[in-house]
Amino acid sequence: MEKGYVHVYTGNGKGKTTAALGLALRAVCAGKKVYFAQFVKGMDYSELKAEILLDKLTMKQFGRDCFIFNNPTEKDFKMAEEGLKEIKKVLWEEDYDVVVLDEVNIALYYKLFNLDDFVHILKNRKEHIEVILTGRKAPEEIIELADLVTEMKEVKHYYGKGVQARIGIEK
Amino acid sequence: MEKGYVHVYTGNGKGKTTAALGLALRAVCAGKKVYFAQFVKGMDYSELKAEILLDKLTMKQFGRDCFIFNNPTEKDFKMAEEGLKEIKKVLWEEDYDVVVLDEVNIALYYKLFNLDDFVHILKNRKEHIEVILTGRKAPEEIIELADLVTEMKEVKHYYGKGVQARIGIEK
Repeated sequence: MEKGYVHVYTGNGKGKTTAALGLALRAVCAGKKVYFAQFVKGMDYSELKAEILLDKLTMKQFGRDCFIFNNPTEKDFKMAEEGLKEIKKVLWEEDYDVVVLDEVNIALYYKLFNLDDFVHILKNRKEHIEVILTGRKAPEEIIELADLVTEMKEVKHYYGKGVQARIGIEK
Repeated sequence: MEKGYVHVYTGNGKGKTTAALGLALRAVCAGKKVYFAQFVKGMDYSELKAEILLDKLTMKQFGRDCFIFNNPTEKDFKMAEEGLKEIKKVLWEEDYDVVVLDEVNIALYYKLFNLDDFVHILKNRKEHIEVILTGRKAPEEIIELADLVTEMKEVKHYYGKGVQARIGIEK
């Protein structure tokens, strides 16, 4: 099996989680098995239903039902830590082809788990696994080790016009 | 029904078509009906199979089986023109909630059809339709009329390392 690469989608523009979802869909279409984990957030997003529609996709959330804007709580730390334990199993022992760690950059930014631990888990994964890391504020070390990095740059956003996040579009 | 907005995903980084695919998936998960058109390209991408996996998704291609890198041929013009005619019907008469026009920015850049004609069709669409326009080199007029614009900026790409486009990841 060929070597898998590490992608990072970061920056403050819309399209990071969405691109990860698109990659998951494309991979499933090609018969690949995909694990899609969301860190930091645990809201009831439409995309969670993708697991029902797509056989080869597993969706998991390791966050509370609100985004962390400021100080993470003890529960945030606990859930992220449990998530990381699960991810280690997925990357080291299970048989996925593509693993998405959505918002993991934010988890690292808030130090919900240790960067060195995370990098250790990532670097020692089954070699063929393609890994997608998303979220603003990707740490320098993550940019460094990634094979592909795209910055989603916000040029214009309708949130500025007062448009709220809408079901099926943003959530 | 609420007003739909126009998104643009442009720039030279990876993630534009992929984000559009992700948005299509999220919309379908929320019960929306999605039309996904690819201009300029007609290759056998994995994502075309998404139509089989997802009931509410329609995929169409209006391009030849290679990307236009330089001078478009007569066939490129003809296919794009036919595509635009179809898109007019989709946006004005049919009952889709989300319409993706993948690589339409490139079609406009190569003047495969007229910008004013395109803008006319777009502006007079059924008001509730959310429209997603992708591709490098989005014309200024398109940026101007869009409600949301993200530039996918290439920070690092493995194509530089000699990695080829892979089935289920890039195509």
